[in-house]
Amino acid sequence: MTQIIDCHGHYTTAPEPHNKWREAQKAAFKAGGAPPAYPAISDDEIRETIETNQLRLIRERGADHTIFSPRASAMAHHVGDQAVSEAWSIHCNNLIARVAGLFPETFTGVCMLPQSPGADLTASIRELRRCVEELGFIGCNLNPDPGGGHFRSPPLTDESWFPLYEAMCELDVPAMIHVSGSCNPGLHATGAYYIAADTIAFMQLIEGDLFARFPALRFIIPHGGGAVPYHWGRYRGLADMLKKPALADHVMNNVWFDTCVYHQPGIDLLARVIDSKNILFGSEMVGAVRGIDPETGQYFDDTKRYVDALPISDEARAAIFAGNARRVFPRLDAKLTARGL
Amino acid sequence: MTQIIDCHGHYTTAPEPHNKWREAQKAAFKAGGAPPAYPAISDDEIRETIETNQLRLIRERGADHTIFSPRASAMAHHVGDQAVSEAWSIHCNNLIARVAGLFPETFTGVCMLPQSPGADLTASIRELRRCVEELGFIGCNLNPDPGGGHFRSPPLTDESWFPLYEAMCELDVPAMIHVSGSCNPGLHATGAYYIAADTIAFMQLIEGDLFARFPALRFIIPHGGGAVPYHWGRYRGLADMLKKPALADHVMNNVWFDTCVYHQPGIDLLARVIDSKNILFGSEMVGAVRGIDPETGQYFDDTKRYVDALPISDEARAAIFAGNARRVFPRLDAKLTARGL
Repeated sequence: MTQIIDCHGHYTTAPEPHNKWREAQKAAFKAGGAPPAYPAISDDEIRETIETNQLRLIRERGADHTIFSPRASAMAHHVGDQAVSEAWSIHCNNLIARVAGLFPETFTGVCMLPQSPGADLTASIRELRRCVEELGFIGCNLNPDPGGGHFRSPPLTDESWFPLYEAMCELDVPAMIHVSGSCNPGLHATGAYYIAADTIAFMQLIEGDLFARFPALRFIIPHGGGAVPYHWGRYRGLADMLKKPALADHVMNNVWFDTCVYHQPGIDLLARVIDSKNILFGSEMVGAVRGIDPETGQYFDDTKRYVDALPISDEARAAIFAGNARRVFPRLDAKLTARGL
Repeated sequence: MTQIIDCHGHYTTAPEPHNKWREAQKAAFKAGGAPPAYPAISDDEIRETIETNQLRLIRERGADHTIFSPRASAMAHHVGDQAVSEAWSIHCNNLIARVAGLFPETFTGVCMLPQSPGADLTASIRELRRCVEELGFIGCNLNPDPGGGHFRSPPLTDESWFPLYEAMCELDVPAMIHVSGSCNPGLHATGAYYIAADTIAFMQLIEGDLFARFPALRFIIPHGGGAVPYHWGRYRGLADMLKKPALADHVMNNVWFDTCVYHQPGIDLLARVIDSKNILFGSEMVGAVRGIDPETGQYFDDTKRYVDALPISDEARAAIFAGNARRVFPRLDAKLTARGL
C-alpha cells in the first residue's frame, strides 16, 4: 500500500480576511503608507475552507496527500516592492503552515518566495530557510518571470539564480517553476502565461548546462511540462543541433513534469514520451479549470482518472502516484516514513 | 489523385548576397546613413539554392507543392524602424516571387509583412496588396509580437489589427500567425518563442470574439498549434469558464493547425483531438530542426511520414494533405484548378 501524493495543490480558497488584507496592503503601498495589521483568522475558518473544498475533493477522488502552496496567481511578485512581496509571502506561507498543522496527514507545505523584479534573492533565500527549517516545508515555487508577463528576467541558467539553488541543494528541497498572475493584457494567466512559461523554462535548461553545476538541483515543470511532451521530437532535435547531450542525461535527471493536463489524450501522450520516473501526479486543484468536461461527464481537473486509465505497469503507476514524489521531496519521504507509510 | 501541399515552407537558404545586403542595411540604419543598392541575384543562383535544398527534399519525401515564405526568424521586425522593415520585406517578398516564378509548379508565395513596433499597419496592408495583387501571393505571415520577445503588442483580438483583417478578408487570403527571431536572451527562437507565441495566440482568440466580427478571417497557428492540442482539455474548460461557446463554434471554423510536430506521438495526439478538417500538412522545411532522429533513423522534420502513419481514413488524410489547404488558400485552389489539378 502506498500514499497517493498530489504534488500540485494551491490554497485557492484562503479565508476572505487574508485576501482583504492583501488588497489593503496594495492600497497602502500605492498611497505611500503602512498596511493595516494582519487580521486574526481562526482555526475554524481555515478548517472550513479546506474541508469544503480541497479535502472533500481529495477524498472523493481518492488521493491521500497534497503538497500544498499559496495560490499561484496571487503571488503577484510584480506588485509593490521587495518589502511588499516579503510581507505577503510570509502571511501566505504562514497560512499554508496552519493548514498543514491542522491536517498533518493530508497536507504538507511548499512556500512561495518573496521575489520582486530587480531585487536579488536575499529575501527569497531567507524565507525559504524559515519555511523549511521552522515551518516544516518541503519545497518552494520559483517564479521565472517575477515581472508578470514580459519575460524580462535572465534565464534560469543565469548565475544570478545560483544563490537560491545553493540554498535549495543545502536544504535538499526542489522547486516547482511557476509563474504568477499576468499583468500583460495579451497573456491570460492559466491559459497562456503558465503554459508558455513552462515551455520557455524547459528550453532554457536545454540551452544551458545547469545540472552539471548543480547535480542535486531538482525542478518540477508543472502543467504537464507546458508544450514540451507534445513537441518532444523538436526538443530532442534542438538539443542535438545545440550539441548538447541527449535530454535523458542533460536535463531529465533533474526535471519532472506533473500530470496537470486535463484530458485523457494529453496524459496518454505524456506517459508515452516521458519516462514514468519523470512524471509526478498532480491536479492543480482547486484550480485553473473547475468545470465538468461534457465529453466525459467528469471534472476536467480530476487527473487521477486519467492516470488510472493509462495502459502502464503497476510499478510505473505507483512511481507516478507516490514513489517519484518521495524521491523529489525527500523531506516528505522522511515525514511519511516516520508515520510508518 | 491530389497534390500534396506543404503549407509551411520558408526560404531559409536564400542567396548569400541577399543576407549580406540585410547586414549592410542594419549597419546603415545604425550609422544613420542609407543602405547600399540591393545586389543583382541571378536566376541561376536562386535555382541552385532551391534545387539543392527544398526541391530535393520535397521530391525525396513525396510532397508536390509548398506554400513558401521568407525565413521567419529573419523577418526581425524589432530591428530598425518602419522604413527598414518595409525595404527588407519588399526584397524578401520579391525573392519569394522569383522562386515561385522559376518553379511555378512547386512553389506559391506567402508574404512577410513590414510590421514595426509601434507603427500602424498601413505599410503592412500596402505590402500585402502588392504581393497578392501584383505578385500572385496567396497569404501572409502575421507577427503577433513584432517587438521580438516581450509580448508588448495588443492581443490579436484588439481593434488595432482590424484594418489588416479587413484587407485579408477583401483579398480572401489567410494569415499564418508567426513570430520572428527573439531579441530576448531568455527565449530561444524555435524552441521557446515560437511555441509560446502559438499558444498565447490561441488563448487570445478564446478570450475574444474576433470571428463573430470577421467570420471569413482565417488563421493558421503553426508548429502544431503550440501547446494547444496537448492541453485541449484545458482550453475547452477555459472556454467554458469564460462563458464562451464551445471551441468548435467559437474558434475552430477559422483556425487551422499545421503538422510541424517532429515525432509520431505528437502527430498522433494532434489527429486524435483536433478535427482533421482543421489540420494542414506542413513541415517548416528547411527549418528549425535539421537532424536525424536517432530513434527512427529519419529526419525529424520529415512530417509526411508521421501523417502517412496516422490511423485515419483516406478521406481525412487527403483533407490534411491537400483539401484543407485549398479551402484555406482559395487563391491556391484557383491556381491548381487552372492547371487541371
